[in-house]
Amino acid sequence: MPEKIKQNDLALLLSEERSFLVKIEKNKKLHTDFGIIDLSKAIGKSYGSIIKTHKGKEFVLVKPSIVDFLNKKARMMPQAVRPKDSALILAFTGINKNSIVVEAGTGSAWLTLFLANYVKKIYSYEKRKDFFENAKKNIKASGMKNIVLKNKDIREGIDEKNVDAVILDMQNAETVVNLAYKALKPGGFFVVYSPYIEQVKAVVEEIKKYNFAQVLTVENILRPWDVRGHTLPKRQGLLHTGFLTFARKVF
Amino acid sequence: MPEKIKQNDLALLLSEERSFLVKIEKNKKLHTDFGIIDLSKAIGKSYGSIIKTHKGKEFVLVKPSIVDFLNKKARMMPQAVRPKDSALILAFTGINKNSIVVEAGTGSAWLTLFLANYVKKIYSYEKRKDFFENAKKNIKASGMKNIVLKNKDIREGIDEKNVDAVILDMQNAETVVNLAYKALKPGGFFVVYSPYIEQVKAVVEEIKKYNFAQVLTVENILRPWDVRGHTLPKRQGLLHTGFLTFARKVF
Amino acid sequence: MPEKIKQNDLALLLSEERSFLVKIEKNKKLHTDFGIIDLSKAIGKSYGSIIKTHKGKEFVLVKPSIVDFLNKKARMMPQAVRPKDSALILAFTGINKNSIVVEAGTGSAWLTLFLANYVKKIYSYEKRKDFFENAKKNIKASGMKNIVLKNKDIREGIDEKNVDAVILDMQNAETVVNLAYKALKPGGFFVVYSPYIEQVKAVVEEIKKYNFAQVLTVENILRPWDVRGHTLPKRQGLLHTGFLTFARKVF
Amino acid sequence: MPEKIKQNDLALLLSEERSFLVKIEKNKKLHTDFGIIDLSKAIGKSYGSIIKTHKGKEFVLVKPSIVDFLNKKARMMPQAVRPKDSALILAFTGINKNSIVVEAGTGSAWLTLFLANYVKKIYSYEKRKDFFENAKKNIKASGMKNIVLKNKDIREGIDEKNVDAVILDMQNAETVVNLAYKALKPGGFFVVYSPYIEQVKAVVEEIKKYNFAQVLTVENILRPWDVRGHTLPKRQGLLHTGFLTFARKVF
Repeated sequence: MPEKIKQNDLALLLSEERSFLVKIEKNKKLHTDFGIIDLSKAIGKSYGSIIKTHKGKEFVLVKPSIVDFLNKKARMMPQAVRPKDSALILAFTGINKNSIVVEAGTGSAWLTLFLANYVKKIYSYEKRKDFFENAKKNIKASGMKNIVLKNKDIREGIDEKNVDAVILDMQNAETVVNLAYKALKPGGFFVVYSPYIEQVKAVVEEIKKYNFAQVLTVENILRPWDVRGHTLPKRQGLLHTGFLTFARKVF
Repeated sequence: MPEKIKQNDLALLLSEERSFLVKIEKNKKLHTDFGIIDLSKAIGKSYGSIIKTHKGKEFVLVKPSIVDFLNKKARMMPQAVRPKDSALILAFTGINKNSIVVEAGTGSAWLTLFLANYVKKIYSYEKRKDFFENAKKNIKASGMKNIVLKNKDIREGIDEKNVDAVILDMQNAETVVNLAYKALKPGGFFVVYSPYIEQVKAVVEEIKKYNFAQVLTVENILRPWDVRGHTLPKRQGLLHTGFLTFARKVF
Repeated sequence: MPEKIKQNDLALLLSEERSFLVKIEKNKKLHTDFGIIDLSKAIGKSYGSIIKTHKGKEFVLVKPSIVDFLNKKARMMPQAVRPKDSALILAFTGINKNSIVVEAGTGSAWLTLFLANYVKKIYSYEKRKDFFENAKKNIKASGMKNIVLKNKDIREGIDEKNVDAVILDMQNAETVVNLAYKALKPGGFFVVYSPYIEQVKAVVEEIKKYNFAQVLTVENILRPWDVRGHTLPKRQGLLHTGFLTFARKVF
Repeated sequence: MPEKIKQNDLALLLSEERSFLVKIEKNKKLHTDFGIIDLSKAIGKSYGSIIKTHKGKEFVLVKPSIVDFLNKKARMMPQAVRPKDSALILAFTGINKNSIVVEAGTGSAWLTLFLANYVKKIYSYEKRKDFFENAKKNIKASGMKNIVLKNKDIREGIDEKNVDAVILDMQNAETVVNLAYKALKPGGFFVVYSPYIEQVKAVVEEIKKYNFAQVLTVENILRPWDVRGHTLPKRQGLLHTGFLTFARKVF
């Protein structure tokens, strides 16, 4: 039985050419290239229903996933960690719906929200008040409920114990290795995202001082292809985002 | 309160140098480079406890994630889709613990098990009897419960309706576009893994005939780095696995 | 004994921050961010000498290589084949100062000029009159003397016999395989630059019909690195230019 | 008029399936999968002629390029710098048939021979006596005449002045920046091949102390494609060889 859309719910309006992420509210109109949509009309419809512009163009009302939310909000969330890199964190740690995760720094909460979609609970540390407030707003807008956001410098201590993963996207991540080691359960994963080689080296040097196993550093190069007419990789694009370092606590 | 290890449970024995995935059984011994481990002694211990070889070398008893299971069984599961590619399926579709997914062909169930770790339920189609039997064995060994395995050619029909994603890793995936379109809910994702360019083209040609949006083909190049001494990318490795094509059903 | 600069010679004015490619002429002034340079003063100086702006900023007068010329003229020469790809043609064929080469289509003569720097003689075919005229102008400006430029469709016939290489950067290169085979000496190289996979396939299909050996297709991904402060690959850039296919005539 | 093959000349025996690089000598037989070839019979023939095995299989007698020589001798010449990287040195410096080049260390002379094919004269420094002797042997076998090989540590001084390029493939290349700067003519290129990031950083740090312009570091990833049946990149291969750093002397 598909869920009904209520006032203030999010909806993705999807057509072949374009999509829009909107909050459904009374007396709200969306202006598109294909005409105007009266969003009030979505209230009471089921996700999966069709809504039309005043010119008759049809859009389907999709319940947005967190990935839809993140894609649409990306411009407002200057993200460091991209989907391709975030996904590797899942694939290489195996954290899942039973996992408890600690993360810092929150930044705009892009990675926080991405991970929250897959894990049981995520504790996210952000020392800067302004980033913290912005992250709080983004998390609220997303509707995600399994995030505990803290306005605290993770270097002052990790409150959680026996966690499945500690994931860092911050300057001087090497100063947190000690704390991460203590917070992790045996077999738990320490993960660091580093744009620069110097950061990778500093983190790996520090990791060597503790009982970590399975230390691994990778980078991921994503190539979009154009296959609409002729077939060739996209000519211009991202050549680099960052390096991911993984290590696993033994004792 | 950490879970206690019972007879027939899986455990990952982890040390800094090596790890072993074992089924804990009475009167079973594991021979390692560091001495012999009497696995009976693990019964009744908590995950996170230590177990020693007869020479005194310590291993920690870790509750294995599905990724541990897949890594250790990889040689017995000639996988087409690698972690780096499987992870992109999550990152680009946003399927999660609420999602219902259809997959074909099962093969050794590598991708099935990987996805089952993140989604609510996965229905997996395998037409070959021998592959089906092997996949059944692998799924049983993994302990995963949210997989429905079918010994059926998906081209004869998809039984499920209104699913969140249809994911194909099979020859002639282009012949399933029609069925996938029908089985998907509006906003649902069609995903195809294709080793060859010709397969990509055939699938994209077929996708164009239906109301799909957000059509995208990518490949992912993973570069492991060596940062133990000098810092440089690994010299030899995988240059190619396959292409991933994504499309999203509109109506 | 360094060569003296004469009226109408080309010179590269090089400083740490900037460089300019200029034709040295009487009564000509170059306006730079660092002040005005009176180019008349370069006449009679040796390459390697210094010339100053009216503000005292020093530039060295370098005799430009063809690569300097091509880099500076690149904007006016919308090139298909990049230095990284052009260089592979040298490295994989071994053509050198004793080699006779046929090339089509000339386009802006970018590849023509690049190759002319390394080979004995290059015959370049361009069917379009406007491209031919533009190429003629670029070749004249470069000062290169070992190029024979023809305003002719190479598909009407290759006049040269027993050549060391036939190099194509043109649409429908597969229609020239037959002619290239005839023009090549035994052991000579057929090389095609193709932006699209479909072109690669068409050319390789045709190559199979003749006695060619050592058939090889490659693509080259160049990653510029930033090592001024932190060390990381450049974030944005070229992901694709084209594919190079090589084959070697046997009989 | 094609050149005649004399006693002791090198020849590449080329067929569609296989090729062999041989020295043509009296009473010498080559055993192949396709039968035995009596190499005496090549004496007096022209390059481009056909020679047959005793089973009638035809091979064409090709005058080998230096690239043929290097490809066939590669196993005996453990090369650091690959064709793809060597080629970039040409493409980014523009050195050509008029250029004087200094190189160190010679190693097996792989890069020396590659560059000698394109430049006027190359002076190559090798401090190790055993490498020097081996390089001398390889250069002699190649027949190249424009190489001056020195059994000298380049760090003791570069004898040549006003050269077009100084190219280093050696440990601690940063200690040679000073000497290279002095030996180069204005506008000349300093090039370093470095397998590790740490070497790149050390060299770039040192370069900053001198008047160099156009400092650039790149790496080159070559992907061979398989287009015989299905079309896909080769699955396994080289992920990394080394980084190339370029800088250009100003004054």
